[in-house]
Amino acid sequence: MHAGVDVGGTKVLAVELAGAGDDLVVAATAQVPMPGRSASEAEVEDAVARAVLEVAAGRPLTRVGVSTAGLVDREGERVRFAAHLPWRDAPVRARLAERVGAPVVLANDANCAAHAELVAGALRGASSALLVTVGTGIGGAVVLDGRVVLGANGMAGEFGHVQVVPDGLPCECGLRGCWEQYCSGRALERVMRVALGSHLDGPEVAALARNGDPVARQAFATVGTWLGVGIAGLVSAFDPEAVVVGGGVSAVGDLLLEPARRRLLDALQATAYRDVPRLVATRFGPEAGAVGAALLADPARTPA
Amino acid sequence: MHAGVDVGGTKVLAVELAGAGDDLVVAATAQVPMPGRSASEAEVEDAVARAVLEVAAGRPLTRVGVSTAGLVDREGERVRFAAHLPWRDAPVRARLAERVGAPVVLANDANCAAHAELVAGALRGASSALLVTVGTGIGGAVVLDGRVVLGANGMAGEFGHVQVVPDGLPCECGLRGCWEQYCSGRALERVMRVALGSHLDGPEVAALARNGDPVARQAFATVGTWLGVGIAGLVSAFDPEAVVVGGGVSAVGDLLLEPARRRLLDALQATAYRDVPRLVATRFGPEAGAVGAALLADPARTPA
Repeated sequence: MHAGVDVGGTKVLAVELAGAGDDLVVAATAQVPMPGRSASEAEVEDAVARAVLEVAAGRPLTRVGVSTAGLVDREGERVRFAAHLPWRDAPVRARLAERVGAPVVLANDANCAAHAELVAGALRGASSALLVTVGTGIGGAVVLDGRVVLGANGMAGEFGHVQVVPDGLPCECGLRGCWEQYCSGRALERVMRVALGSHLDGPEVAALARNGDPVARQAFATVGTWLGVGIAGLVSAFDPEAVVVGGGVSAVGDLLLEPARRRLLDALQATAYRDVPRLVATRFGPEAGAVGAALLADPARTPA
Repeated sequence: MHAGVDVGGTKVLAVELAGAGDDLVVAATAQVPMPGRSASEAEVEDAVARAVLEVAAGRPLTRVGVSTAGLVDREGERVRFAAHLPWRDAPVRARLAERVGAPVVLANDANCAAHAELVAGALRGASSALLVTVGTGIGGAVVLDGRVVLGANGMAGEFGHVQVVPDGLPCECGLRGCWEQYCSGRALERVMRVALGSHLDGPEVAALARNGDPVARQAFATVGTWLGVGIAGLVSAFDPEAVVVGGGVSAVGDLLLEPARRRLLDALQATAYRDVPRLVATRFGPEAGAVGAALLADPARTPA
């Protein structure tokens, strides 16, 4: 069997696919929590292997696609840097191939998610598009001519550290005013902490917002407005047909996306003379990275 | 003969080319001032035709390439909007073809400049690159797989109205904090006005800076630092091999580019794990738009 696995800041998710194209579905999943922020490289690799072997459930693995946060080199061999993972210029593809006992294809998580949406999701038929994932941090991908752009270093789509506020909030990356300080699960938690004086995690804020809590809804509107600010800049630069938003924070849907759409319209120049790109949620939601990785591992599921 | 003509905020420049590839040169030029900010569409079109007919000097025109500031549609038929020109959704290609009595190819000025640099300039051999022009405002172009990306509306590369300062300086486009308010000829003039209390135009500031005047040099350093801020965001998003800077303000060379290079290094995440793209001046300088337009008009000058 083929598996896809996504390595995020808080958990590892492995999937098995069935079907193809519009009928593509996730047939099985396995989830393993990340072993904490001070975990070693080996502990993270153990967690990845455990999730993959759990979804395989004893069946032999033909090939495994690995989707990971962080900067993956153009060759798909190494994770060069990941803000929320311990890998530093680490030969992750070869190490994981040894652990799971099968060939591995390695790619950036947002690039995997964009691939999934292009093959079978919200970007089917799109020539130019952007994907923005709003989770622990921000990830992204650039699609031109119907395929994911890698960039000279394999780092195209690293939107999280675009500066949106000069001398703004400090970021773990060492810079200030990075977009992900204003638009991410952590930003959502910070906005709620300022408003309430106590800590709620992202899923708790989402549950409150879905139940109509005005403070939680305002927190999503604040983060959504910053989402629109950043997207407007990217749309000015690349002029895509569509922008698709994924990542855990986007699970609330229009509570996040509607403020982003409004801000995009307000912040884009010459909207009377252009089509404003549609801003939509991913089809595959929090599974998009794992689905894209599984599609890379099993190209037969991609319609010609 | 083939001609190329560039329509800018302050002047119209027509060129005739000779040679090809590395040996490409501008053989003749003709320049006509723009008829002022309140000029009609017809007055601007007259100025363009005058420059073209002057460079043709009585010879029959085979085809004319027109490079213009503003948003050109994907089909190369209409100028949809231009902040510093009167055209509003105007069928400029057909009108100019009638005025010059020859077929016309119409494209955005920064896209033309990028084409010139790809064919015969600073971007020869580059697969992925960005071009930023710093003149009256900011223009730009995105290069992928060795060719200029148009975007869904033909508007890729409109970097000037990317927001770099939330609620920043008001812009003619109606937005606030646009990059070109901080990095352009007008920004340079504003910085000098604040420092000296009197008005100097861009070429006067450049002359002072070349002669070592510390206030003028600091003004270029300020504008150059903002150039680096904006480029850093674009490099994070697109990960190009090279960034080439053109436009009138860049004629001072490293007085502008060195502060931009420093800021790019400071503002880019994970520079230990990536190649930082080279940041260089255009080969064709203020003539790049006209040269690119002339190359579009005369594809035989583009090496296979």
